[in-house]
Amino acid sequence: MPSIAVEQPVGIIGAGSFGTAIANLLAYNVDVLLYSRQAPLVQQINETHRHLDVDLSPRVRATNDLQELAQSCTLLFPVVPSNSFRKMMHSLGPHLRPYHILIHGTKGFDAPEQLFQDTDDGKPVSRSDVSTMSEVILQESVVRRVGCLSGPNLASEIMEGQPTATVIGSAYDEVISIGKQVLSSEHFHVFGTYDLLGAELAGALKNIIAIGSGVLKGKGLGKNIQAMLITRGLTEMVYFGNAMGSQSSAFFGTAGIGDLVATATSKDSRNFTFGYRLGQGEAIEDIEATMPELAEGVRTLQIARKLARHYKLRVPITDMLYKIVFENFDIDRAIHFLITYPYDVDVDFI
Amino acid sequence: MPSIAVEQPVGIIGAGSFGTAIANLLAYNVDVLLYSRQAPLVQQINETHRHLDVDLSPRVRATNDLQELAQSCTLLFPVVPSNSFRKMMHSLGPHLRPYHILIHGTKGFDAPEQLFQDTDDGKPVSRSDVSTMSEVILQESVVRRVGCLSGPNLASEIMEGQPTATVIGSAYDEVISIGKQVLSSEHFHVFGTYDLLGAELAGALKNIIAIGSGVLKGKGLGKNIQAMLITRGLTEMVYFGNAMGSQSSAFFGTAGIGDLVATATSKDSRNFTFGYRLGQGEAIEDIEATMPELAEGVRTLQIARKLARHYKLRVPITDMLYKIVFENFDIDRAIHFLITYPYDVDVDFI
Repeated sequence: MPSIAVEQPVGIIGAGSFGTAIANLLAYNVDVLLYSRQAPLVQQINETHRHLDVDLSPRVRATNDLQELAQSCTLLFPVVPSNSFRKMMHSLGPHLRPYHILIHGTKGFDAPEQLFQDTDDGKPVSRSDVSTMSEVILQESVVRRVGCLSGPNLASEIMEGQPTATVIGSAYDEVISIGKQVLSSEHFHVFGTYDLLGAELAGALKNIIAIGSGVLKGKGLGKNIQAMLITRGLTEMVYFGNAMGSQSSAFFGTAGIGDLVATATSKDSRNFTFGYRLGQGEAIEDIEATMPELAEGVRTLQIARKLARHYKLRVPITDMLYKIVFENFDIDRAIHFLITYPYDVDVDFI
Repeated sequence: MPSIAVEQPVGIIGAGSFGTAIANLLAYNVDVLLYSRQAPLVQQINETHRHLDVDLSPRVRATNDLQELAQSCTLLFPVVPSNSFRKMMHSLGPHLRPYHILIHGTKGFDAPEQLFQDTDDGKPVSRSDVSTMSEVILQESVVRRVGCLSGPNLASEIMEGQPTATVIGSAYDEVISIGKQVLSSEHFHVFGTYDLLGAELAGALKNIIAIGSGVLKGKGLGKNIQAMLITRGLTEMVYFGNAMGSQSSAFFGTAGIGDLVATATSKDSRNFTFGYRLGQGEAIEDIEATMPELAEGVRTLQIARKLARHYKLRVPITDMLYKIVFENFDIDRAIHFLITYPYDVDVDFI
């Protein structure tokens, strides 16, 4: 097992709420270098050691120099939103060497911008049009030791010091063990899995179901139907995963059920909140205009809808949510459609 | 597929909150005969058509005559608590004939009273000491066509007319189809599964995890750790199920995740509420003295603890909850123990 030299800091790319939460978690064990594109923010963090209303550990230092970051750190955690991930990797890539290890925490897909402008009837999408974040890292750099971080990790609770767990997905034992080494603490349990793709798919797809759960809550509905949405939503996630080449088991652990339940039941989740406001009757433009960070699930929903067509998947929840979000489909009609949907069986994926 | 004669009512045994909710659901499709032991309650229901602050359908009639119930109804739904289920079946059994169909909705185990008096060091328990409710029906009557009802079915929400789903578990196609026929409506989706044992085990065991979820909430903790408890708790449920002879898949559908998520996140759940008050620091005696209906999970926890020893299962959440509820173990110590528990892998049961 490789050991990161104690004097070497661990890097984080992206100073949003999740990056900031991870910075403080890492600072239990190592020095941290936090990258942001925004020079004023970097200066503010280094001067005040506060960000997003949270006290940062004295072991966290900010920088806006990608070259410094790559030269100072062997281990990097990129956590920027999926829609700017490739651009970030494009800038970072030339500074990376084969010894670097990247464990990302971004729960979304990469796809050509064209895809998001297409109407529903546009060009079909196949698997090769869509990349997970670890695939983007492999495409944009010489790094091979990649992994992802996935689990019930609502940033607001981590920043409060509340306990939880996460899972590191990677094909490489050394990526999992180094991730455990720097992240584990008495507040934070770190699992490992070799099914990187499964962990990435679960993390991305669960945001769709979180939007749906918010819609139900926004309509004033209760726990029974929310639990059914989570149950059947998880089934659709497994269908996507199986079609795209991951195992079912990823969806039944920390990265699957764990992340799904936390995200789909918490007002601290952007995707849940997006759905909630939709359920309350707000227009999508108004919601997007007033949300400070991207609700990843909206992008993921567009990609998933097209992938479902490509793979000919029967995913009525994904279909209905697409219609609600992008085609102004009536929410009550969608619920009625799903409750009376002729499902054949309860569980058919094991 | 057998069809219940339209003029024949469907029977419900037990006029608690769940029995009452099911009565109104059935009344969409059939006449309902609701049995209660309490003569004054029967009279009140028939005179006022109100019970538990809910308007009952005019198609619901109450009786306290078991013989009348058995003679009037081919299909019966027993929904009495697990600690009085065998006694009820003992009285009902002599009135039942081989043509009867029983689909129960009780989420707990039957075991000799002696077992509940035993301390933790008492006599070990093996599978033959413990019966599911369908096994009790088979033992106490000539009925063979048995099934269970399981899913995210919080009675309070069903009584409000909110939509949800359930699953009927039975080895018999005709039990599943007749259950679907009488229960399905545009508010209530009914799945079927042949894994009766799995559906019963999931329904019973999830109450343990619901207590744990309440404890976390009572301690003021958030969604991340609650989601992890649900994830790892589900894993322990699968371990119990596999040891006792059911398939894993039962735990990933409506009767498993569905019921677990609803029960473990709702203040309308007795088991969650029991745990919540424990987490807030109340003594178990005070909680039990003031709860109008049994929290099934407390009984199930005692049985599960002994079964875990019998099967040599590694179920740290069940162990810790047993210590918290029955041995005054410190809750913070238990959480710390679980977060730092040396789990080998995230998912190992598929």
